[in-house]
Amino acid sequence: MLQRHAVGYVLRDERSAQSLTLREVSAKSAVALGYLSEVERGQKEVSSELLEMVAGSLRISVSTILRRAADLMDMETALSAPSVDTLARM
Amino acid sequence: MLQRHAVGYVLRDERSAQSLTLREVSAKSAVALGYLSEVERGQKEVSSELLEMVAGSLRISVSTILRRAADLMDMETALSAPSVDTLARM
Repeated sequence: MLQRHAVGYVLRDERSAQSLTLREVSAKSAVALGYLSEVERGQKEVSSELLEMVAGSLRISVSTILRRAADLMDMETALSAPSVDTLARM
Repeated sequence: MLQRHAVGYVLRDERSAQSLTLREVSAKSAVALGYLSEVERGQKEVSSELLEMVAGSLRISVSTILRRAADLMDMETALSAPSVDTLARM
């Protein structure tokens, strides 16, 4: 899982948890709606400045977003590692 | 502290800890030396793909880099917050 996929997932997850629409976060953060949507889907890298603005509009810190993204990346790595059972069947 | 400053600091710190030169990490990761240098100094955003490549050449995970960057950002926020002493003198 690439960083931008993890960060996008966290941003969308947090926005949904707060019952906010893309339009609302876009307006609050002054980040273009289309761009924000692409960032959430992991299709665009987000610049450090825009990440600050989006985080601010969600009232969470960039460090919290980065930690959650890191957790997601580690979880995916753990899930994709072959299990003992899989290895035993080889 | 912006994300790119924190990530750049972590990358330089890790490279120094491993006694590697910019040239060595650049060669190992196939990331241009000038670009890598700018990333380390927080002057350029690093794409998710290049971050994977640099992390791989340092043998650490991107999630570890993101967590360390998050720690740095939080530490700076804590240090820049006015202390009780400062507030008392106001």
